[in-house]
Amino acid sequence: MNVAVDAMGGDYAPELVVQGAVDAVSELGINIILVGHEKRVAEALNGHPTGGRISFHHCEDVIRMEESPLKALRKKKDASIRVAFDLVKSGRADAVVSAGNSGATLAAAVMTLGRMKGVDRPAIAGILPTEGGPVVLIDVGANVDCRPSHLFQFGVMANAFASSCLGINNPTVGLLSIGEEEGKGNEQVRLARELFAKSDLNFIGNVEGRDILSGKVNIIVCDGFVGNVVLKLTEGTVAAMRRVIERELMGSFLGRDALMLGQNAIYKFIRRLDYEEHGGAPLLGINGVGMICHGGSSAKAIKNAIHIAVQYVNNRVLEKMTLQLKTSKAC
Amino acid sequence: MNVAVDAMGGDYAPELVVQGAVDAVSELGINIILVGHEKRVAEALNGHPTGGRISFHHCEDVIRMEESPLKALRKKKDASIRVAFDLVKSGRADAVVSAGNSGATLAAAVMTLGRMKGVDRPAIAGILPTEGGPVVLIDVGANVDCRPSHLFQFGVMANAFASSCLGINNPTVGLLSIGEEEGKGNEQVRLARELFAKSDLNFIGNVEGRDILSGKVNIIVCDGFVGNVVLKLTEGTVAAMRRVIERELMGSFLGRDALMLGQNAIYKFIRRLDYEEHGGAPLLGINGVGMICHGGSSAKAIKNAIHIAVQYVNNRVLEKMTLQLKTSKAC
Repeated sequence: MNVAVDAMGGDYAPELVVQGAVDAVSELGINIILVGHEKRVAEALNGHPTGGRISFHHCEDVIRMEESPLKALRKKKDASIRVAFDLVKSGRADAVVSAGNSGATLAAAVMTLGRMKGVDRPAIAGILPTEGGPVVLIDVGANVDCRPSHLFQFGVMANAFASSCLGINNPTVGLLSIGEEEGKGNEQVRLARELFAKSDLNFIGNVEGRDILSGKVNIIVCDGFVGNVVLKLTEGTVAAMRRVIERELMGSFLGRDALMLGQNAIYKFIRRLDYEEHGGAPLLGINGVGMICHGGSSAKAIKNAIHIAVQYVNNRVLEKMTLQLKTSKAC
Repeated sequence: MNVAVDAMGGDYAPELVVQGAVDAVSELGINIILVGHEKRVAEALNGHPTGGRISFHHCEDVIRMEESPLKALRKKKDASIRVAFDLVKSGRADAVVSAGNSGATLAAAVMTLGRMKGVDRPAIAGILPTEGGPVVLIDVGANVDCRPSHLFQFGVMANAFASSCLGINNPTVGLLSIGEEEGKGNEQVRLARELFAKSDLNFIGNVEGRDILSGKVNIIVCDGFVGNVVLKLTEGTVAAMRRVIERELMGSFLGRDALMLGQNAIYKFIRRLDYEEHGGAPLLGINGVGMICHGGSSAKAIKNAIHIAVQYVNNRVLEKMTLQLKTSKAC
């Protein structure tokens, strides 16, 4: 198994990305191709043990976070994210992991590998850690305006991913809305509900904002505008939580003691809600395997994303998804 | 000042609602009319001191949480929420506070008092507590499908409310989107951005999910679908946080000690993010003053909502809003 890692993508590239790749190699026993400017990547790798499992693929360009994805892809034929997907297309790699410009990653994947049959819109599936296990939130930003049929396809794709890759048997699927009753929500949601209700998915109906982190449902479907707000709000809340807990506890004599004593428990709790620790978000609906990581990913997040990519390949998720798209009449 | 309180609305009505009214009377020196079934309300009031400032207005009916608002309002002419707004219309009360069916509260307000001139769609403004002070999120559920002009009117109304009632001088206004750049977001947001940019509001551009609780901006504008998801997700996150902290800390020997020592600091932190403690959500854009409270409101939340209603009346927010709607060319 060969995973192409975009060594130039992310706020802490290439250093933390390379560190994550090194950790993944030693833990997972896979091969990694570091795609990027060879001199810079080799410097970052300097001193790390590779066990002969890490190779380089040089390219000159990188698409920066603030660049317009389509414009940048047209201009920079030799950008690391584009070259990484080329390696999958030519069969030299099995998957791509990138913490770079997520719009460019999505666009490069679609341009290079194409959409799966039966999928109108590829989508990004966020994995949120909750008390009741991971929850798949789809879409978290690829598609801001969706038709009901797009939402239904998101559900079918996430179903194949969650059952094959996260080990959730017959996952429950909910449609994010603003009331549990059938008539609630906007028009898009009301019509999508009919498609889900007729399908063979384990559909439990509408779910609300308060259900997202409750672990009540395994898969939550929404458009990419709502999903992106939810993902970033969760991220912001965890950050605010960390700041406030530390300040509140440090601000009182008893609190300082509590922080010392309870440190492990409190940080365990924050980590549990911290999606960055969970790795990346799979790109569903393309003819291949791609993971989009947070720009600020730690080495651990990169390693975890590589781990999911490996499971994605090993568990033949693409084949299962193709079958489910066919039998669910999502096409 | 007379505030009509829907004594029958809410999960803990009439007991906690009456308790909140009693507390408000003693703290704020106002008069309250408890609207509801007199025998039940009088029982709940039994033993509480009223200082002669609490009166009853009997009505037979109540609209339950799960009822369809419009159907219920047509059928139940003598429902408490409807009667409460009738008291405002006839000049016997200055404001309404209800923790009952929020759809019915909104509909009763619009039917009885009508929309303000220049407002196409009244909206519900959630008040979220953050580290940097309260943030007004508008709309949190009244309007699921909005035109750009509706979003702009929400911003103008919230501006009048936040400056007059929350004491925020020249509040900053942000448009909730999924990227800060001008071209980001869905079509509705891109077009609304142009209206805001041309206005005399203190508009800072797009904000993202991670900015909602950061205190970076005073007013955040979005449609009622997104706003409701955000409000309930925040509510759910606070609840999950409380459960996890308690369980994590109680699950370890050191953690148990930490909980004992740090209890005050930890609960102080949770309270800071807990919007229920902040009272209710003002209904903006109707010809009158109405506060919608969470169904599970505590007595303290009811009291705080009454407090905001009193400020709304005392600070002549309606007059200022009328003027701002006119000068901002929102009509």
